Amino acid sequence: MKIGIIGLGKMGMNLLLNLKESDVDSVGYDLSDEVKEKGRKQGLHIVDSLEELFESLEKRKIILLSTPAGKITNQLVNDLSILLSPEDILIDSGNSNYKDSMNNYSIAKEKGIRFLDCGTSGGMEGARYGACLMIGGDKEVFDEVESLFEKISCEKGYLYTGKAGSGHYLKMVHNGVEYGMMQSIGEGFDILEASEFEFNHKEVASVWNHGSVIRSWLIELIEESFSEDPKLNKIKGIVDASGEGKWTIEEALRLGIPVPAISNALFARNSTKINDSFSAKVVASMRNGFGGHKVIEK
Amino acid sequence: MKIGIIGLGKMGMNLLLNLKESDVDSVGYDLSDEVKEKGRKQGLHIVDSLEELFESLEKRKIILLSTPAGKITNQLVNDLSILLSPEDILIDSGNSNYKDSMNNYSIAKEKGIRFLDCGTSGGMEGARYGACLMIGGDKEVFDEVESLFEKISCEKGYLYTGKAGSGHYLKMVHNGVEYGMMQSIGEGFDILEASEFEFNHKEVASVWNHGSVIRSWLIELIEESFSEDPKLNKIKGIVDASGEGKWTIEEALRLGIPVPAISNALFARNSTKINDSFSAKVVASMRNGFGGHKVIEK
Repeated sequence: MKIGIIGLGKMGMNLLLNLKESDVDSVGYDLSDEVKEKGRKQGLHIVDSLEELFESLEKRKIILLSTPAGKITNQLVNDLSILLSPEDILIDSGNSNYKDSMNNYSIAKEKGIRFLDCGTSGGMEGARYGACLMIGGDKEVFDEVESLFEKISCEKGYLYTGKAGSGHYLKMVHNGVEYGMMQSIGEGFDILEASEFEFNHKEVASVWNHGSVIRSWLIELIEESFSEDPKLNKIKGIVDASGEGKWTIEEALRLGIPVPAISNALFARNSTKINDSFSAKVVASMRNGFGGHKVIEK
Repeated sequence: MKIGIIGLGKMGMNLLLNLKESDVDSVGYDLSDEVKEKGRKQGLHIVDSLEELFESLEKRKIILLSTPAGKITNQLVNDLSILLSPEDILIDSGNSNYKDSMNNYSIAKEKGIRFLDCGTSGGMEGARYGACLMIGGDKEVFDEVESLFEKISCEKGYLYTGKAGSGHYLKMVHNGVEYGMMQSIGEGFDILEASEFEFNHKEVASVWNHGSVIRSWLIELIEESFSEDPKLNKIKGIVDASGEGKWTIEEALRLGIPVPAISNALFARNSTKINDSFSAKVVASMRNGFGGHKVIEK
């Protein structure tokens, strides 16, 4: 088995290093010269074109995409469905929306290309040393490349999740849960920081990680952050979101399921990006209107 | 060092077993004959009265309370402050409100009794095999009994958190975070259960626990539950709360800190206990009023 990876960003490059270390014959391709250079410096087999990538692979090609979700990945699946040969296998390991993946599955299938959607969790560290993989698509295709997933995941860290789209669906929900867990942890430290006691956040995270009910990788990560910057003074409290949380909430709306913790976690992230919000001005104006409560003028 | 434990419920009995296994000389007391019998059957040293407990201990007595938070624990601290001798050490390992613990510290101090508040996490398993302990009170008192905490906690699983009350304060916030994390996980599985895919919840929990960003003890616990009851058909979706989440939110209100994830987690629990809610009737009535939307009659 030989694997080609397209897209050597934070995840793709680490997956390629992971494959190399697992003695899986592999080759990488990226548009950026800088990234290609970086890969070659690490002893990876990097090619300069899709054509060269195809030539480097075996007759039945297996290509793993680690490209930005949305337009870029969808376009690539479209193009590759035409360029690849029937029976070739295309795996999208990125954070694609599951609806895109269901569609990409159909586009590929029409051309005889076998498509798997592979939700990938565990961050950069996971990609490098053993990821958590959630794989949707046809079972017989999964079976054919199961050993690949076994090699790049951590022990017991991959699951065949069912029909096309289910891998990215499960990854989407995973990320929604992640938003809620992260927000809850953040709120807890907010209270500790404002309290009358003098907690050492790093020590708190450490003790919580040793035997408590909330021990988790997320609290391990925040312990590392606190050990480098005890009050997180070096960063701003602004939190971006890359889509999966929003999709999770949209799906919950579609299904009519209440998700108060997950939705409020996303709303809280969105709030961090708004300075001097219009809603706050509206509320302040009304308070002033009925009660004469002071507004703060610019 | 010899330790007396008062209150041999789920936590206290396991702590006593834990102490015994750690070769710490220990003795337990509980009001219930049934509980005492259960302890004796497990080879524990159990006494029948407070007097006997005092006699079993050394000159400088160390007593650990594992009693229900609130009235019972507060009354006990009050009584013991009178019955114990100056220099004796009283440790409240229960889930007391930190304000009670600050007050109990003062009551004990007036009589020369040295009081520590010890938040205990890790559930029954933690109490038995190594808990996570957050300990507030006078540093020199903590130092004197540090080896006790080291013995009953898991490795790196105890922390001196500062002045009286801080141990239970930290445990309170820990539980608040726990509510939010649990609710987020619950919401995720709610979506999976309602989705068009056929996820095996046990397998999902398992793969999430191997290398994913949200790997955590909580997801390990739910994996165990799903392995025994794949759709949780045997239980009702009603969730109680024992106070710490509410206190966390009250504290956040006092401090003026927004806690949308944690508060919504508690509201969600509260909702599970309300059938046919009044607010829902009010909303249904108004919808009917302006739009003629159907109400469901009893």
